[in-house]
This record gives sequence, C-alpha cells and structure tokens, in this order.
Amino acid sequence: MRAPQTVPEAGLPGRVTIYEVGPRDGLQNEKTVVPVAVKAEFVRRLVAAGLPVVEATSFVRPGWVPQLADAAELADEIADLIHDGRVPLPVLVPNERGLERALDKGLRHVAIFGSATETFARRNLNRGLDEQFAMFEPTVARAREAGVDVRAYVSMCFGDPWEGDVPIDRVVDVGKRLFDLGASQLSLGDTIGVGTPGHVTALLRAFADAGLPVDRLAVHFHDTYGQALANAYAALRAGVTTFDASAGGLGGCPYAESATGNLATEDLVWMLHGLGVESGVDLETLVSTSNWMAGRLGRPSPSRVVAALARGSDK
Amino acid sequence: MRAPQTVPEAGLPGRVTIYEVGPRDGLQNEKTVVPVAVKAEFVRRLVAAGLPVVEATSFVRPGWVPQLADAAELADEIADLIHDGRVPLPVLVPNERGLERALDKGLRHVAIFGSATETFARRNLNRGLDEQFAMFEPTVARAREAGVDVRAYVSMCFGDPWEGDVPIDRVVDVGKRLFDLGASQLSLGDTIGVGTPGHVTALLRAFADAGLPVDRLAVHFHDTYGQALANAYAALRAGVTTFDASAGGLGGCPYAESATGNLATEDLVWMLHGLGVESGVDLETLVSTSNWMAGRLGRPSPSRVVAALARGSDK
Repeated sequence: MRAPQTVPEAGLPGRVTIYEVGPRDGLQNEKTVVPVAVKAEFVRRLVAAGLPVVEATSFVRPGWVPQLADAAELADEIADLIHDGRVPLPVLVPNERGLERALDKGLRHVAIFGSATETFARRNLNRGLDEQFAMFEPTVARAREAGVDVRAYVSMCFGDPWEGDVPIDRVVDVGKRLFDLGASQLSLGDTIGVGTPGHVTALLRAFADAGLPVDRLAVHFHDTYGQALANAYAALRAGVTTFDASAGGLGGCPYAESATGNLATEDLVWMLHGLGVESGVDLETLVSTSNWMAGRLGRPSPSRVVAALARGSDK
Repeated sequence: MRAPQTVPEAGLPGRVTIYEVGPRDGLQNEKTVVPVAVKAEFVRRLVAAGLPVVEATSFVRPGWVPQLADAAELADEIADLIHDGRVPLPVLVPNERGLERALDKGLRHVAIFGSATETFARRNLNRGLDEQFAMFEPTVARAREAGVDVRAYVSMCFGDPWEGDVPIDRVVDVGKRLFDLGASQLSLGDTIGVGTPGHVTALLRAFADAGLPVDRLAVHFHDTYGQALANAYAALRAGVTTFDASAGGLGGCPYAESATGNLATEDLVWMLHGLGVESGVDLETLVSTSNWMAGRLGRPSPSRVVAALARGSDK
C-alpha cells in the first residue's frame, strides 16, 4: 500500500492522540439507519485499527437523534470493551439523565456539548450563552463525583452561521468557564468549517495567553470549505496534541445537503505519518474499516486517502 | 456569500500569485470533449475573476492529448486577450515545434514539462533524466531569443508511483539545471499527491540552501491524499509566493479513476483570504465560473468551497 515519505519537521510532538468521532459525530448525520450490531463492529474495528479513543454514541433523549437512539443497546453490545477499559469510549451526555444512563452501563468517559455563541446555545441547548454553564454544572459535578472524565465540546469557535464572526476572547472565556466547571479537556470545534490556519493559531495563542492549558485542548475541524487538514497542521504546530477526526470522513460527504464535512481520520493519519508524528493507527486496517462502513451506508467515503487507496494505484 | 474571518498570521507575504491551470492541466484529464468556444469563455471568465496568470492550453502534438488538440484554434479565439498582454496566458510546449506554433499566435509565456525521476522522464518524455536537459535546451534558447518567458514544471518532486521516494537533493539538482538552462520559474509538482507539509518545508529549504531563488519557485499540489492545502500552507510559510491551482478542482474529481486531484483554486483562495494574504481573486465570480464549467462537464465540482457555497447555507 502506498504511504507518504516520512520527512519530520522540527518542533512537533513525537506522538499525538486521535480522538475518533465516527460512530457518534459521523453516524448522527447519516440518514441510513445503521443496525446496532454494525455499530458495535465499527467500534471494534476502530479499536483494532489502533485508535486510542473512540467516541461511541450519545445518550441524548432517543427522539432527538434517531440514529443514536440505540445508545443503551450499543453499550450492551460492546460491554466487554467498556469493562476492559484499555481504550476510552466516551459518550455524549446532554444532562444528568443521560449521564446516569451512561454510568449504568459502566462508561467512564463522557462529553458535554457547549457553544461559543448565543444563537447556537439557544438553538441547540435551549439556553442562553451564560445559562449553559448552570445547566452543565450538576452533570459535570455528578460525573466527577463518580470519578468519570468529562470532555467539553465548544461549538462554533471559528464562525457561526447566524452570527458570523465569533470573537476569540469570547471563545477563550467560554473555554475558561468550562475548565472551571471541571472539564478535563476542551474540544474546540469549527462546526461550520470556515476557519483558516491563522485563526487557529491566534485562538490557541489566546488560550495560552490566558494561562489555560494548551495540552488539555483538542481541535475539531470540519472540511466544509476544504480547510480542515491545513487547520490541523496549524494546531499541531501550535502545540495541540489531541485531534478529533472521523473514520472515512463519515458524516461529511461534501456533496450531500446534510454535509458536516468531518475531517477524515485517514487524511489526518497520512499527514501525521509523513511528518513523523506517531498516532498508533494502522492506516491499512483503518481504510479497510472505512470501506466496509461505506458499503453499509451505500456510498463512497469522502476521505481522499480512502478513495485513492481504493483505486489501488495512482499511476 | 459566506467568507472566512480574516485573522492574519505574522511572517506571511501580503500578496501571492495564483497560477491558474484549469484550462490546461484541469481539462487535459477530462474525458468530455469541451468545444473551443467554451474553453475560450472559460479563460475569459477566469481572467474576469481576477486570476493574474491563466495557463491556457498545450501545444503538444494534437494526437497526444486529444482534449487540447484545438490549441491553435483556442489561441485564435482569445487573440484579443493575448495581444492585450495584461494577463499572461502561458502554454505548454513540449519542443521547438510546439514553441514555434505558440510564437506564431503571439504568445509570450511558455512552459516546459520536466521530471525529477528517471522512470517518469522515460515514460513522459521518452528520455532519461539527464537527457531531458539536452532535449529542452534548444526550446528554451529559442524562447529566450524571442524574449519569451519560460516556466519549467518539475514533476514527481515528492514521490513517484514507480520509484517510490524521491531524494530531495535530486529534485534540487534537476531544478538547478532547469534554472541554468534559462527557466524563469520552476513549478515543483507533487504529481501523485503523496507529499506532506514537513516534506514541502524541507524541499524548499534545500533549494534555499543550494543558493537557488525561492522567489522563483512555484508549488503545484494535488489533493489525491487530501494534503494539497496543508502543503500550500507550509509552502506559504516557507516563502513561496506562486501557487498553481485549478478552478473548481478541475481535473481532480476524487471519485474518478482518472483523478489527478488538482488543488481547487477556490479552496486556496478561501485560506489565503482568511490569512489576510491578497490574491486579487473575486471568489464569488470564480465560484460562479466553476459552477458554469461543472455544468458543461456534467458533474459537480470537487472543490469543497464550490460545493459548500452552491448549497447556499451551512446552517
């Protein structure tokens, strides 16, 4: 299988963590209903490919995200992986009710979904920007009391479809308040994919300047405008060591109306391996997993690496 | 129309030149035969969108690249633009015969197509790596004698499908010999799209270390493995100010067997404008041009920006 020539760059970390979001963020945007057994196999294959963290599902109210209404059944299907505990399998929890359902299944890592903008907070959380913290507080407190790790997503960090530009100092303020609540890690999301590398660098520098821990920041880029990998490279240079990505670019077909354009894990791995940055991911196993999943969904993967390697030759 | 928030980055140039290759490198890989009048309109629209250089066609022997067999007719169709001279309209010339045909049409900018690898030189030029320079010599000499500017493409700079890895010092040596012949600019091509940003940085540094002029280097990235824009960002940081790109990603549908995956001009412009680097390109006019051309070719543009803006909303 073709691979990039490794030409390391000075100043980069030797290893980074890819936080795989395909089973949750990827599938939640897919219209094809995926059977729970297929989802379980997807998670197992991702773990087998070497992904060090796999976000498995979301314990939202089942009516909200029909694709993920089977969260409890999926947890039962992968109970062995959950209890083994070697690979964290975080789940999204919108509130204490969702958290309790996750704890019942023995899950030890959860994520909450915050917003950097007023409009998106109101639309997605039915709360104002400032009110979201009070809403998250009991969930985070209960999780920490149970010894469970809490990641906080911050959506719309680089632009908002209703508000336009999003001030960097507002994103830092939201992030600080989520750290203060007890989040162990923030995932800074470019939910609509408009960000560019200088914006990434400036946002990360602003977090550092505010005394916040860059080693507890993750980045979550969408490829809606083709910027995701360039932005990931800028974040890597700025000291970030955790990168969200979706196997096969799942949830992100650029030609679909519902496109969210998740950064494809394979395209990220290709870049990291070329840069000599270890990810622990076996690209061949991952590509084969994404091709298998693409077959289940009945459409080709939007990952460029998956498409190129599936062609088998670039001569 | 949505646009990126401009967040400039220190150390970048204030302005760069996009060298548009859509009418030549884009179309030459398309199977749909495009009428010469459509090609002429394509060139005119690209010029109207603010592209400062538009490579128009190739004066190869007509049987070699059927799509570009109408090079002389196209030159007649755009004779007013050629004679106006404000926007350079380079054409590829494989040899002196091609050059004479271009000179007959009043063209003042030509390009030759060299190789950084033995195998590709033999396959594409029917010459060995060392022999290609002797082959180019009379063409370059005649062009310069006529006061015509010569760009030299260097293909397979980051990897070769037959040879695998390509040593950086070999690429620099080939580049030096092309400069010595009289090329005014080199376009360093990642023909199969395998390169990654550290490789780009290292290659450009090697050119600088050899005393060669980085301001006379252009980069030509393909998105076969999704790396093109990250590589362009690395090149921008390394001091490159000329970037080859293809409107709408023409010639580069990632789902087609024939994919070459040219970097889409729109995706590059989005990044540059976000970085506060001027390109002179009006993105809206360019997107409308690419959508028009996609209609002529009967398939959607592979550019992420074109696809996202065509959807009209990312809410």
